[in-house]
Amino acid sequence: MKLENPNPIDWKFSVRAEQLQGSVIREILKVTQRPEVISFAGGLPSPETFPVDRMRAAFDKVLLENGKTALQYGTTDGYTPLREFLADSLSNAESKILPEQIMMVSGSQQALDLVGKVLIDEGSKVLVETPSYLGALQAFSVYQPKIESIEMDEHGIIPADVAAKGEGARLLYALPNFQNPTGRTLSVERRYELVETCARLGVPLIEDNPYGDLCYRGDPLPKLLNMNPGGVIYMGSFSKVLTPGIRLGYVVAPITLIRKMEQAKQASDLHTSTLTQMAVYEVIKDGFLDQHIPTIRHFYSGQCDVMLAAMSKYFPATVTWTRPEGGMFIWVTLPAQIDSNRLLEAALAQNVAFVPGVPFYANNPATNTLRLSFVTVSPERINEGIEKLGNLIKAMS
Amino acid sequence: MKLENPNPIDWKFSVRAEQLQGSVIREILKVTQRPEVISFAGGLPSPETFPVDRMRAAFDKVLLENGKTALQYGTTDGYTPLREFLADSLSNAESKILPEQIMMVSGSQQALDLVGKVLIDEGSKVLVETPSYLGALQAFSVYQPKIESIEMDEHGIIPADVAAKGEGARLLYALPNFQNPTGRTLSVERRYELVETCARLGVPLIEDNPYGDLCYRGDPLPKLLNMNPGGVIYMGSFSKVLTPGIRLGYVVAPITLIRKMEQAKQASDLHTSTLTQMAVYEVIKDGFLDQHIPTIRHFYSGQCDVMLAAMSKYFPATVTWTRPEGGMFIWVTLPAQIDSNRLLEAALAQNVAFVPGVPFYANNPATNTLRLSFVTVSPERINEGIEKLGNLIKAMS
Repeated sequence: MKLENPNPIDWKFSVRAEQLQGSVIREILKVTQRPEVISFAGGLPSPETFPVDRMRAAFDKVLLENGKTALQYGTTDGYTPLREFLADSLSNAESKILPEQIMMVSGSQQALDLVGKVLIDEGSKVLVETPSYLGALQAFSVYQPKIESIEMDEHGIIPADVAAKGEGARLLYALPNFQNPTGRTLSVERRYELVETCARLGVPLIEDNPYGDLCYRGDPLPKLLNMNPGGVIYMGSFSKVLTPGIRLGYVVAPITLIRKMEQAKQASDLHTSTLTQMAVYEVIKDGFLDQHIPTIRHFYSGQCDVMLAAMSKYFPATVTWTRPEGGMFIWVTLPAQIDSNRLLEAALAQNVAFVPGVPFYANNPATNTLRLSFVTVSPERINEGIEKLGNLIKAMS
Repeated sequence: MKLENPNPIDWKFSVRAEQLQGSVIREILKVTQRPEVISFAGGLPSPETFPVDRMRAAFDKVLLENGKTALQYGTTDGYTPLREFLADSLSNAESKILPEQIMMVSGSQQALDLVGKVLIDEGSKVLVETPSYLGALQAFSVYQPKIESIEMDEHGIIPADVAAKGEGARLLYALPNFQNPTGRTLSVERRYELVETCARLGVPLIEDNPYGDLCYRGDPLPKLLNMNPGGVIYMGSFSKVLTPGIRLGYVVAPITLIRKMEQAKQASDLHTSTLTQMAVYEVIKDGFLDQHIPTIRHFYSGQCDVMLAAMSKYFPATVTWTRPEGGMFIWVTLPAQIDSNRLLEAALAQNVAFVPGVPFYANNPATNTLRLSFVTVSPERINEGIEKLGNLIKAMS
């Protein structure tokens, strides 16, 4: 029954697929999985922080008590008790968030794809930070926008540059807390200014917030969402505060948009795992995250301190870097003549890895930048890896 | 900190989103969830068939023995042991399927979206059966193809019509076994002819096969995939043979295409739940489906017989219907002057529901058609509902 010598297919991809590229990071990660490599390249949270027993008990309870419901098809918008819980925790005295404004998604990466699907036409103007999260650039690029890069400084994105470039933009994508890749945080003063600028321009403002709870000191900063619920699309994730492998996130948006995104999600994957949503609700419904998140903050803060101290000790004075107040990443700027791709080659030869900065730029990449993650490497190996990097940088200076 | 009287956003959706509509079925399902409604409208498998204890034991074992791996980010292509298992079970003496040709997806609906994303440009010619699966029409429509409907008869899609209309098509979408919505099966003779026709035209042939294992008698029919692995994109699902709520499916395609789909999936949701993939592998690795699937076949076959007998008894001679040899659906053709939407209104007033045929057509809908599902209703209520429908049809004839 098998065809003899069939014509091979001459694959013709869509224009959007032709320009799509795999993530540089995922390519680097393949190289760095050997145990002898000290990898600062990953964006993975530390598995030490995963509440495995708690997750195990929750899946067991849900399957024991509600197995048939948990294993059946569910609604596209998601499990209602979980959306109600999230609506409560996102509301504050000034602004109430409704469960109807929330849709559960298969990781917040899916929210980026769905926003692109419903808001971006070919050639649409889309604003992003400089640099920005690689996965967002990738998700949006599928829909062929014209991406404009908005300037940042150490206090985050600069609202005046949004005002200058934002006219007619279909969206602005921002990661205000402990940004990936820079670790920078948008200052409280600028938050209001940014929200006001976007509202004045009529530009939807995406607040992507996977790391916001991972602040090392004090409380999380005020959300852009609460400053203008009618103009902000908020993306939340369980990947960094619970576990990433279950693929669960959520998106909050004004009703008009969330209903359109719901139609897009229905066409994309019908709905997100009912079982996963019910189990996560079981884990968090009694306030577990309030005890759990402080342990992650403490752990990451200690790791960050070790790396910052090692950098001060081993990096030459010509190198500068960010001092994050939360999250998982430090952003390094080398002397202008050092290409971080060349540094990576030399570092890999010594079993040290990181991610060069270039892929995080939508336009005009700074080739002398790189991202370091400190969360999955032991303090001893952080010191060893940073010392090696420091020596390589000195040799290349 | 809340903005005073911000400008409301004047939402501008993308062109692809403007023409996107919610599923008619999901709308009907909202109406039919009252317990007094006898619903033949659902496409849901019967929860009676869910192996809840087995799933519970598998999630527990995976979280106990490999919790940190199961809860961490995974690769975009999916869990290797599961892909190896599937590759083995899809291979036969004539054609070997490699794990590298398989990507795990978040339900096979996602495979439809990803295929659309990488193969369809605006205006691309796309071939579908008449009628066809609503979810595929919805997934493809996002990418704005020109859909051409290929004729079917009781032996399935007609290869000569593919030959007549297929030149330059970007894909043909077929559901050869117990098709949704008609319950029809593509005859063995035509399978080879269809594969040969597509290969000659250079048109990629999608074989969507969620119901193939649910044959009431004999063995599953030969797969199109094995007749030409270089030209067929095969979609498989655990929704109908295990449980749907976990959202797990897979797509098999030639390496060139699967790598491009992998990039598209990375941008869409990074990867499918590691935990879910590991748990399903745990459930099926020792051959559980070989014992389990026959129990589903037996159950659905009995339900189907009850409905067919009731239809013979209560429907007037002017009505015709398919006699499926597997799967979950019967397709009904009313006298030409009866609009199934009008029948639905009358039926809902008597607490009986079904899905009118119109949304399953990409072009020129037959308004006198409808789909019945027999899997989730008890035999008594099947008889009661079919009797009511029969009386309504007689009254409208």
